[in-house]
Amino acid sequence: MNLDQSKIPQATAKRLPLYYRFLQNLHASGKQRVSSAELSDAVKVDSATIRRDFSYFGALGKKGYGYNVSYLLSFFRKTLDQDEVTKVILIGVGNLGTAFLHYNFSKNNNTQITIAFDVDESKIGTEVGGVPVYHLDTLEENMPGDTPVAILTVPAPAAQSITDRLIKKGIKGILNFTPARLNVPDSIRIHHIDLAVELQSLVYFLKHYQGES
Amino acid sequence: MNLDQSKIPQATAKRLPLYYRFLQNLHASGKQRVSSAELSDAVKVDSATIRRDFSYFGALGKKGYGYNVSYLLSFFRKTLDQDEVTKVILIGVGNLGTAFLHYNFSKNNNTQITIAFDVDESKIGTEVGGVPVYHLDTLEENMPGDTPVAILTVPAPAAQSITDRLIKKGIKGILNFTPARLNVPDSIRIHHIDLAVELQSLVYFLKHYQGES
Repeated sequence: MNLDQSKIPQATAKRLPLYYRFLQNLHASGKQRVSSAELSDAVKVDSATIRRDFSYFGALGKKGYGYNVSYLLSFFRKTLDQDEVTKVILIGVGNLGTAFLHYNFSKNNNTQITIAFDVDESKIGTEVGGVPVYHLDTLEENMPGDTPVAILTVPAPAAQSITDRLIKKGIKGILNFTPARLNVPDSIRIHHIDLAVELQSLVYFLKHYQGES
Repeated sequence: MNLDQSKIPQATAKRLPLYYRFLQNLHASGKQRVSSAELSDAVKVDSATIRRDFSYFGALGKKGYGYNVSYLLSFFRKTLDQDEVTKVILIGVGNLGTAFLHYNFSKNNNTQITIAFDVDESKIGTEVGGVPVYHLDTLEENMPGDTPVAILTVPAPAAQSITDRLIKKGIKGILNFTPARLNVPDSIRIHHIDLAVELQSLVYFLKHYQGES
């Protein structure tokens, strides 16, 4: 099947990696079919949303049968370009950066952190989670030219200037874990995850939406 | 002003901590008023959305003047219950957990991590980021009874059984950083942040929505 993926709603696109991971687990456990209700229970997305999401891909479950796990899995693998590895660099090998480097992304994923940068001399020249750490001063010479994605786990005051350097080197997307809001051209995509905001948001919801889901 | 906060749309509620943080910075720098365009540029939310969000609070900017920073700030402080500290516990003092414990939440925030748990004997009895670490086996006796929120930064296979124990002890919300999808009663709120899914989602967007914002 050939479809124009830019027609898929972004909210649907965001859920694809989640579906993919769960289908991998199902497949590994030998399960051959799955209902939207089972999927719903496992991934915590309501089953009407799952059915709508899947309909964009022409994957229409049969009543009383559900979805074929192998078919879905091979379809998602292609859709998510699982066969093509995307190179990622990481800037900032502190606790959070180290957590990322030890996280085994390649197991369930099509991304690979190939190189990391820091300014701490004691880390330069070492490997963390199998990834070599270089000095940030050498970013321009050592960052591979075909790297589209950077993970930013540096102190907030350093974030913007590093971002400017990354963009000059051709980065297309940044996973920003700093509290800083980054100024970038429209062509650059930023996904921002701010730990303090996530925590505060959860507290706010608990206080004001207690009992709703 | 007294308003029923459960009437605020959840999408709006999610942006409140972001607005609050930026207004604090503005106020600290001595700025007395701010336009929705300036706010928009700083927090990366379009200005129509900001105006609509603020209108839920009756905070209506004046044309050519904008919003009064002090008023907004004191209003958000009350709305977000900044004067009331919410206790948080953290389970799993690995790299990610340690990053959380070193993150100075209390500076911009109304939350405080009071105690952490792990199973690594070398960590038990130490303090990380000023927070004491106890053995997970003693969760039931050492977790303060009035703790509504837990941060879960443990290996995925341990997540569900720890969640069950937390719920028995009265936890209301969990910030889940493990890849595991947790089964909980409807009354428990889970915010799930999966590092691999975040990274994969960014890669997917780069490939299929290039150039859109």
